[in-house]
Amino acid sequence: MSEIRLDPTSEEWVIMASERGRRPSDFIRPKVKAKPPDFLPSCPFCPGNEAKTPKEILSYPDQNKGSWQIRVFANKFPALAPDGSTERRQEMGSFLSIDGVGVHEVIVETPVHNRFMALMDEREIANILLTYQNRYDALRRIPFVRQIIIFKNQGANAGTSIEHPHSQLVASPVVPRHFRIQHEVATNYYDRTGRCLYSDLLYDELTSGRRVLVETDRFAAFHPFASRQPFETWILPKAQQASFSDTSMEDRVDLARVIRIILLKLYRGLNNPAFNLIVKTAPVGDESHDYYLWHVRIIPRIIERAGFEIGSGISINVALPEETAQLMRELKVE
Amino acid sequence: MSEIRLDPTSEEWVIMASERGRRPSDFIRPKVKAKPPDFLPSCPFCPGNEAKTPKEILSYPDQNKGSWQIRVFANKFPALAPDGSTERRQEMGSFLSIDGVGVHEVIVETPVHNRFMALMDEREIANILLTYQNRYDALRRIPFVRQIIIFKNQGANAGTSIEHPHSQLVASPVVPRHFRIQHEVATNYYDRTGRCLYSDLLYDELTSGRRVLVETDRFAAFHPFASRQPFETWILPKAQQASFSDTSMEDRVDLARVIRIILLKLYRGLNNPAFNLIVKTAPVGDESHDYYLWHVRIIPRIIERAGFEIGSGISINVALPEETAQLMRELKVE
Repeated sequence: MSEIRLDPTSEEWVIMASERGRRPSDFIRPKVKAKPPDFLPSCPFCPGNEAKTPKEILSYPDQNKGSWQIRVFANKFPALAPDGSTERRQEMGSFLSIDGVGVHEVIVETPVHNRFMALMDEREIANILLTYQNRYDALRRIPFVRQIIIFKNQGANAGTSIEHPHSQLVASPVVPRHFRIQHEVATNYYDRTGRCLYSDLLYDELTSGRRVLVETDRFAAFHPFASRQPFETWILPKAQQASFSDTSMEDRVDLARVIRIILLKLYRGLNNPAFNLIVKTAPVGDESHDYYLWHVRIIPRIIERAGFEIGSGISINVALPEETAQLMRELKVE
Repeated sequence: MSEIRLDPTSEEWVIMASERGRRPSDFIRPKVKAKPPDFLPSCPFCPGNEAKTPKEILSYPDQNKGSWQIRVFANKFPALAPDGSTERRQEMGSFLSIDGVGVHEVIVETPVHNRFMALMDEREIANILLTYQNRYDALRRIPFVRQIIIFKNQGANAGTSIEHPHSQLVASPVVPRHFRIQHEVATNYYDRTGRCLYSDLLYDELTSGRRVLVETDRFAAFHPFASRQPFETWILPKAQQASFSDTSMEDRVDLARVIRIILLKLYRGLNNPAFNLIVKTAPVGDESHDYYLWHVRIIPRIIERAGFEIGSGISINVALPEETAQLMRELKVE
């Protein structure tokens, strides 16, 4: 018997169909043959090819090697670009549009072509998180910016064409409908209970403990009760912070530790799966609300969405989060 | 300059980033080498292997050959199954679940292993649509059924593991949140205007004409203004029908003609891309409302969703529907 679970944050249903013949260990990828090289002359993100990218916005130097450690520049093929107006255009009744005004940046995370985030040390990941925050704080001051989406695609299945480790930021002039719905759900919860839905969810996951992977002073990582995908991981802060911008240095160092453990376990346990890492944070202007927690989601790209998911919005998850969490807990990493 | 467009039915934003270096013709797949065989001894859906599937629920005979033409049976690895209760279980505050009660059926569309729907004649497709409707009408009578999702996955990229042409039906005990949102949007529109949002959208698309592919007496197919994917196609009825169950024989024959033209153009033009076909229809109990139109969506699986789409719910479409529609119109099929 499968089970249908409700994600309380989006109110979307998820079917847990773990009997469809798969065990958590079935998701382990075949071992990849060749590791990519640490330097690739044709890679636009490798050192020496800086002229192939748009103008540098920010870079952190590497004290030891006299070169850069992290570089930020505009995406060469931006989804959104700064010129234009947010004036709405209405053509007939049905066609509403806006100029594609916004910002789309690339953060090259390391000069080393094959240094996947899973293999970095905590300090390197903390510096990437600091870069996220610096760019967030810069972009949120642009008057038209309503939402900032920070994300990372690793592996072709995760939608990237460039192998060199990098993240992206998109500053959007519109708040995604997704966030509006989550906002409405969380506000209704806050009004009824006086509490933050996400804090309560975190409390319940920690109390249950069955789906928890890692807990530190400031964060907890778990495979949520209504996970949409096998090994989908949420990392929530224990403090009441609606915006990623609220994080302190201590927060980022602690978060870097948690991200490293999760990614290294996925890398070792599933053989370097493709994944997306997403920072979910409140819309600009809603950053000091008490009914939201910013958080990180890591989504390994193991299963294809099919017609049922696309047509209904209901996901079919072929692995129970209780079982995948146990597998992840049992994997030991230093 | 890209453009941000609003899908008026879901109120989700879509970024049209057609300048990212792609032309509609860039989506043509490399020619596939070998066509699959017309019969595969190991295929559980091929004739002679009927004992490998669960018990037959329905079949249509082939008058000429004395065998079956279409077969329906329960999915061997069902996402939902009939035994269980729809009683909600609440564990702590955050964990709400229901038994996975429902129905999950498979419709084998043809005895011929390699007879893709694009290559069928109109009569065969009309018979498949009749089968959809017969099973819809049977399943909607089950007391716990709240929503029926009819879909087809073709090709590994579309999430299927079995090549033999088949469709699926899932009868769900819960209405997907997606439908609730679309219902709310359409009801608000109806209350404000006294008209059906979907009929108005169809009227506007036909008036503009730029994104229309095919128009018949009863249906029109177009690449919607806010298409989320290249070549995403919607087929809407011209009559005010909220439920697929309302279709007449004449409707199904006309729809079969439209589906055949669209699929054959995709097959020829893009070299047999993977795709999902979805029948969107009103929840059980909302079937006679005036604010919804059931419709068909055909979504070629050309582009991977990446972290931005998953994190924000905003899609980035790298092709303008005006341009993909023109390419589809120019493709001539008999």
